[in-house]
Amino acid sequence: MSTGSGEPPVRRRRGRPGYDQETILRTAVELFNRKGYDATSMGDLAKELGLTKPAIYHHVTSKEQLLSLALDDALDELTALVTEASHERAGTSAYERLRHVVRRSVEVLVAHQPSVTLLLRVRGNSPVEQAALERRRWLDDRLAALVADAVKEGALRDDVPPALVSRLLFGMVNSLVEWYRADGAYDTATVARTLTTMAFDGLARHEPPAP
Amino acid sequence: MSTGSGEPPVRRRRGRPGYDQETILRTAVELFNRKGYDATSMGDLAKELGLTKPAIYHHVTSKEQLLSLALDDALDELTALVTEASHERAGTSAYERLRHVVRRSVEVLVAHQPSVTLLLRVRGNSPVEQAALERRRWLDDRLAALVADAVKEGALRDDVPPALVSRLLFGMVNSLVEWYRADGAYDTATVARTLTTMAFDGLARHEPPAP
Repeated sequence: MSTGSGEPPVRRRRGRPGYDQETILRTAVELFNRKGYDATSMGDLAKELGLTKPAIYHHVTSKEQLLSLALDDALDELTALVTEASHERAGTSAYERLRHVVRRSVEVLVAHQPSVTLLLRVRGNSPVEQAALERRRWLDDRLAALVADAVKEGALRDDVPPALVSRLLFGMVNSLVEWYRADGAYDTATVARTLTTMAFDGLARHEPPAP
Repeated sequence: MSTGSGEPPVRRRRGRPGYDQETILRTAVELFNRKGYDATSMGDLAKELGLTKPAIYHHVTSKEQLLSLALDDALDELTALVTEASHERAGTSAYERLRHVVRRSVEVLVAHQPSVTLLLRVRGNSPVEQAALERRRWLDDRLAALVADAVKEGALRDDVPPALVSRLLFGMVNSLVEWYRADGAYDTATVARTLTTMAFDGLARHEPPAP
């Protein structure tokens, strides 16, 4: 991609001082989440940053590259986490690995909340979005298999469908993007502990009444 | 609002046969969810319906009226449900009422999935959206109070924050709008049972390991 400007790029060296790809990406993700990816133009981004469009193109090749970088930011750590949890190791049960991956996924989501928010809104409108959906499906499948393994080893109840349990469990984790605020009443550890306690141990203190 | 047309409205009587406010609303909500409310024009809606704009204005006064009708569709039944559950009655515990409201909210969400999807995406960009957010906050507050009551009566564990439990519980319910398909593998009753079983009774069959 060209820098889109008549000025020779060599004259601006690394763009305007204080701006780098990381800063531009962070602002882009915030803007995509606020206005919607499709409705956001590189002109909007330039305005938000107080930069010219050529200055932005000094750091990134396209709006789609920004989307791709953001989705990778969300997906790479989740993929590493789920890959590790899917790996059977001597001395760890599927149940322990599942409980760990649920707790850690809360931490990853909070640490990458803007990019995960963007990821969860992707609908497959372009090859980049389709690739991200493909990676999400892989994660969903691995997590459902882990739930099924934990049922098989006898650690989890077998009167509920494992694939549905997986959907609900990670639906609960994902719901954090809608309301969690890092400066709010609950720290990450409290959210992770409350969520895993509810899902695995249940809220009820006594035998529940008939549904 | 005017009908926006040179033709006298009397000549079209109740609009084009087969179209009424209900049909127009259903299509509008589907379009708002697909394209985003702000990005959808009444022209887009007319095109989708194969109607002229004046024919639509015969049935509804504005795009905002359609939004308002859709949000009321989502909120009215949830409000009735939560109001009933918040009402202390002889012979019912807060725990039973909470468990009931969780199960029923799954059913309401599935029955009104398009309008609840729209509701959950509202960000407060207009007085109509702000009013809907206000009603959502009222629901959240009542549900958090119900969780707190169930803890107080000793039915729910007291080592997790009730307001956070309420967020996670209904975050899990709300996550259904993202993936539930009425023609999919699970009927509403199975989803409602699985969700309440997980949340209240827990997935684990044995004492959990230390977190």
